[in-house]
Amino acid sequence: MKILVATEKAFAPSAINQIRSITTNAGHKLALLENYKSRDELLSAVTDADALIVRSDFVDSRVIDAAHKLRIVVRAGAGYDNLDLDACSAHKVVAMNTPGQNSNAVAELVFELMLYHARGGFEGNFGTELRGKSIGIHAFGNVGKYVARIAKGFGMQVYVYDPFVSAETIRSSGVHACATAEELYSQCRYVSLHMPANDSTENSIGLDLLNRMPDKAVLINTARKEIINEEELLKVFEVRPDFAYLADVEPDCKNVFGEKYPGRYIFTAKKMGAQTEEANINAGVAAARQIVDYFATGNEKFRLNR
Amino acid sequence: MKILVATEKAFAPSAINQIRSITTNAGHKLALLENYKSRDELLSAVTDADALIVRSDFVDSRVIDAAHKLRIVVRAGAGYDNLDLDACSAHKVVAMNTPGQNSNAVAELVFELMLYHARGGFEGNFGTELRGKSIGIHAFGNVGKYVARIAKGFGMQVYVYDPFVSAETIRSSGVHACATAEELYSQCRYVSLHMPANDSTENSIGLDLLNRMPDKAVLINTARKEIINEEELLKVFEVRPDFAYLADVEPDCKNVFGEKYPGRYIFTAKKMGAQTEEANINAGVAAARQIVDYFATGNEKFRLNR
Repeated sequence: MKILVATEKAFAPSAINQIRSITTNAGHKLALLENYKSRDELLSAVTDADALIVRSDFVDSRVIDAAHKLRIVVRAGAGYDNLDLDACSAHKVVAMNTPGQNSNAVAELVFELMLYHARGGFEGNFGTELRGKSIGIHAFGNVGKYVARIAKGFGMQVYVYDPFVSAETIRSSGVHACATAEELYSQCRYVSLHMPANDSTENSIGLDLLNRMPDKAVLINTARKEIINEEELLKVFEVRPDFAYLADVEPDCKNVFGEKYPGRYIFTAKKMGAQTEEANINAGVAAARQIVDYFATGNEKFRLNR
Repeated sequence: MKILVATEKAFAPSAINQIRSITTNAGHKLALLENYKSRDELLSAVTDADALIVRSDFVDSRVIDAAHKLRIVVRAGAGYDNLDLDACSAHKVVAMNTPGQNSNAVAELVFELMLYHARGGFEGNFGTELRGKSIGIHAFGNVGKYVARIAKGFGMQVYVYDPFVSAETIRSSGVHACATAEELYSQCRYVSLHMPANDSTENSIGLDLLNRMPDKAVLINTARKEIINEEELLKVFEVRPDFAYLADVEPDCKNVFGEKYPGRYIFTAKKMGAQTEEANINAGVAAARQIVDYFATGNEKFRLNR
């Protein structure tokens, strides 16, 4: 089979080395389209690929139409809103992600953001400590679990709300379970968001939840910018001079912050939560393994579409 | 008694409020000399003080000579190399520090430095994770213990060397004990320094120890710049392009780094390890309590001089 790695933002060389050895050892051919600049390059590269590995690259119906031989596409990473699952299903293409491989990288970024904000960078200004403060983890998937573990090391009070995880399961991780999102936000000076972007989460974090947060509230978003109701977030900033927003990546309304609210936000220059050597290698290698396994045994464990 | 708080860098207002209530409730008079600009201001303010609370302010023989009535001086903080203990003893002045109050603030700064360096700030560049990496804690006092706890939350492998703490005590904290400094440095990608500056530690960290560290070594110094042999540190930088140095505060040879080794160091603008609201309040309040207690009961628990 021909397995194409198509990445606008290339994998680390060590990841490619491992992907090559996994795929070629299994008798497949590996092709690379790295750092491509136009959709046309992608559309022409996929025409003879049996399998496709991508990162944040958009795989929409045009890509799927062009990939006549494609049987499986794997997003090396957790979030898969860049894959058009309906188009995949319509063409009988199996779509997968590689959940969990980026989780610790994202969780560590949460604490880089929190510490840098709490201390005001390295200027020697007067800061605050994380120890003893409350942190609410909104959605308790792989990232949220790492965030909880690190937060406990810092001596923080950890609260969790996830409508899809039972209170018993949450409590078994040694953290407080909240029955509602409202309870989580009312309780916590820090809230860190870890839900996917979908119809029920988009625009879901706004005035009502954020205004419940206690004094010196800090919202951290390493998930997706789409889950924030930015118009309402700006309203919160207007009425609450104590409120801060730390995000990976810049919101659409970023210019307003720079002008009106200096020191009350950190926005990464580009999405960097998963941008570590370790996550990169893990996710790429997992994608290669899942494809090899699918061709060998039909294993569809991480299939996203039906 | 007249208790003088003399601070070139003032305490937070909430710390002063608590210091005032502790001292005046015990029947003492509180005087403030905050943000003073010259030694003369300090020398004239101390003349009638019975007790003195300072932060990093230099209390040398001139200050002690001028303070005719002084019976006790307390450094609100752990490091006390700003106090001339011999001069205090010669004038029968009790000198104390307030160990432990700043420890968590310093420990959190260690992780701000490590995370910011590992991820290259917030530019979205390719970074590395702390998880699974080894960290050596050189000296296991109050700060070192917080560093160990936080490092375990990050899933790091924690090693400790302290010539004054037994291997049993170290192991009871759930970390590895090293028998020698050489073993610690040989084992650990990250080494964080937490010893005081004194005759046996000054200039003690140099070529021999640093060259033992494994690939991509990172030295973190939130203790005192004097413990580093800077000439030898620069030699390590010359021969090891993988080596990084993160320090609170700037070394004397800082200009060399900026010119020759961009991206391989972080130096805080001014000493900031203890610069948090919490540490500030804790240390100031502890100093006030120790003075009140000394006058009431003669308690000399944190006395530094004999």
